[in-house]
Amino acid sequence: MAIAVEDRGMKMDIMKEVMRMAKEVDEELMPLLNVGSHEKLRLAINHLPHSGGKRLRPSMAIVVAEAVGKKGKTAVPFGCALEIIHNFTLVHDDIIDEDLTRRGRPTVHAQFDTPTAIMAGDALFAIGFKTLAETKVDGGRLRQLLKDVSETVFLIAEGEQMDMDFENSSEVTIDAYMEMVEKKTAVLFACAAGGGAIIGKGSKKQIRDMREYGRLLGIGFQIWDDVLGLIGNEKLLGKPVGSDIRNGKRTLIVVHAMQTLGPKGRKKSVKILKALGNEKATDEEVKRVIQLFEDIGSVDHAKNIALKYAEDAKALLKCLKPSKERDFLREIVDFSVGRQL
Amino acid sequence: MAIAVEDRGMKMDIMKEVMRMAKEVDEELMPLLNVGSHEKLRLAINHLPHSGGKRLRPSMAIVVAEAVGKKGKTAVPFGCALEIIHNFTLVHDDIIDEDLTRRGRPTVHAQFDTPTAIMAGDALFAIGFKTLAETKVDGGRLRQLLKDVSETVFLIAEGEQMDMDFENSSEVTIDAYMEMVEKKTAVLFACAAGGGAIIGKGSKKQIRDMREYGRLLGIGFQIWDDVLGLIGNEKLLGKPVGSDIRNGKRTLIVVHAMQTLGPKGRKKSVKILKALGNEKATDEEVKRVIQLFEDIGSVDHAKNIALKYAEDAKALLKCLKPSKERDFLREIVDFSVGRQL
Repeated sequence: MAIAVEDRGMKMDIMKEVMRMAKEVDEELMPLLNVGSHEKLRLAINHLPHSGGKRLRPSMAIVVAEAVGKKGKTAVPFGCALEIIHNFTLVHDDIIDEDLTRRGRPTVHAQFDTPTAIMAGDALFAIGFKTLAETKVDGGRLRQLLKDVSETVFLIAEGEQMDMDFENSSEVTIDAYMEMVEKKTAVLFACAAGGGAIIGKGSKKQIRDMREYGRLLGIGFQIWDDVLGLIGNEKLLGKPVGSDIRNGKRTLIVVHAMQTLGPKGRKKSVKILKALGNEKATDEEVKRVIQLFEDIGSVDHAKNIALKYAEDAKALLKCLKPSKERDFLREIVDFSVGRQL
Repeated sequence: MAIAVEDRGMKMDIMKEVMRMAKEVDEELMPLLNVGSHEKLRLAINHLPHSGGKRLRPSMAIVVAEAVGKKGKTAVPFGCALEIIHNFTLVHDDIIDEDLTRRGRPTVHAQFDTPTAIMAGDALFAIGFKTLAETKVDGGRLRQLLKDVSETVFLIAEGEQMDMDFENSSEVTIDAYMEMVEKKTAVLFACAAGGGAIIGKGSKKQIRDMREYGRLLGIGFQIWDDVLGLIGNEKLLGKPVGSDIRNGKRTLIVVHAMQTLGPKGRKKSVKILKALGNEKATDEEVKRVIQLFEDIGSVDHAKNIALKYAEDAKALLKCLKPSKERDFLREIVDFSVGRQL
């Protein structure tokens, strides 16, 4: 096992590096999921993890542990645990959001059935914690990781619950949106980077700064993801562009646009805005909404906010000594926030 | 905090003792659930635990830890973790089984909605593991408990999945039924009693025997529960008698009856058996099915199997020194298997 940042002695091709590490993570990850005696449940457990994914969370944990204390190898089970837990949350989210595709394939409940998807999620959750127990650290650190991971999962559930509320709420504030994104997405990145620092026996400051690095990166990542969902490339995303408009998803762009337009502006643009949350809106109608959001500056606003979080995340890396791992952690920020539109 | 078996110096009133301990467990348990900033989610998390319950799993863990090594107090967080996890599995099971009442109250998805119930289950799961991290044992024991609990939850998911399969299966063998009961119910009792022995620093034999005690008790408990579901007192059960017949639940009684009747007998009794799985069957029709099961010995068969498991469970208690805790662990078996019909 040699999951590590490659030393190329030249500018890193971050996409290539991410995919290479993802492949190495998968060699450790996949056997963990090939368990149990119930065939259908095992297939359902493996469905989403086998649909690809960049494995950013385990890679981050492993690289931070290596950067802090040459403990990348020790962080592998922890990283895999987080990836498994990430997949568990996606399986349940897809049920709740009634999404039928993810990563270009049917979601677990679409491929199997909802009861099986609920159980597959629970089983992934259990495997995640079992994998965490394999992390070769002392008892104090194991206890800390267990606390961090379980608290993180609790917050993710709260974030998902907030996201559900938003669907039935006419007014979503930017503050509420930011809290939701922090819980639903950023806490798991914080847990990954912070946990890597714990495993690497980092100083208190390093653990704190790496947690914050992960948190800021996570927020930037999610906002950028929503920008991509609006104006990105359908093939690269694995989901139809415009679906966020048609299902009325409350992204920072939408929240900002509603606030900027105000009651008067919304009334004026009511014809355009009726495509929001309208499953049957035509491509032309969706395009008109996106154009409106661009015209009033909401798309640029979201991009700028995401990029600001990215800058702040990178600034925290100064708690690490210069190394190829630190370079990777810097480039992964630009990769996550600022990806191809 | 003084969760302990009371020394009465006379024959134990086990029902009273169980309820007294349940009350003490609840004083530790309830504050653990009063967490988070999302009100609806918090209400949903608390709904089922506040609907009562005998807290057999935490009581068992605490009493075993005390019997083995005077460590009852140390086992409290572990016991609470198991009770929280038990509640999580019930919340998700009720969604899957589309059950609308439990413990005489609406189930979580009936009271709130299914997405909230999925998240409440996940949040309970997370709180369970966070609580486990509070167990004051050395790193090696904490790691062992984490492995045991996460493996247990995985098996419970498999058991639930098997139970789902049974609904669409015309032939369920007794072996398959026993495997399902072991996974869905018995492993958590095994985890409780075995974990109590680990926390109490028991010998390898004591840990092994206590696990097996919990497992046997769990199997007996579930079979007895199914007997009660068929011929028990509606008020004591908190659910309508006959519901197992109407929703076609595959209990040991049904599996044994189908096997005993054979294709010929089933054909002969087809009029009576059509109430099985028929939501609209009248009370009279349900009674006729139960009478048939009694006549061909399937009810007695299930009772005898359950009582045999109970006897075997009690025999394992000889690995413990005589104490009021050992007496409790013996009486809890008779309380769980052989409760009022």
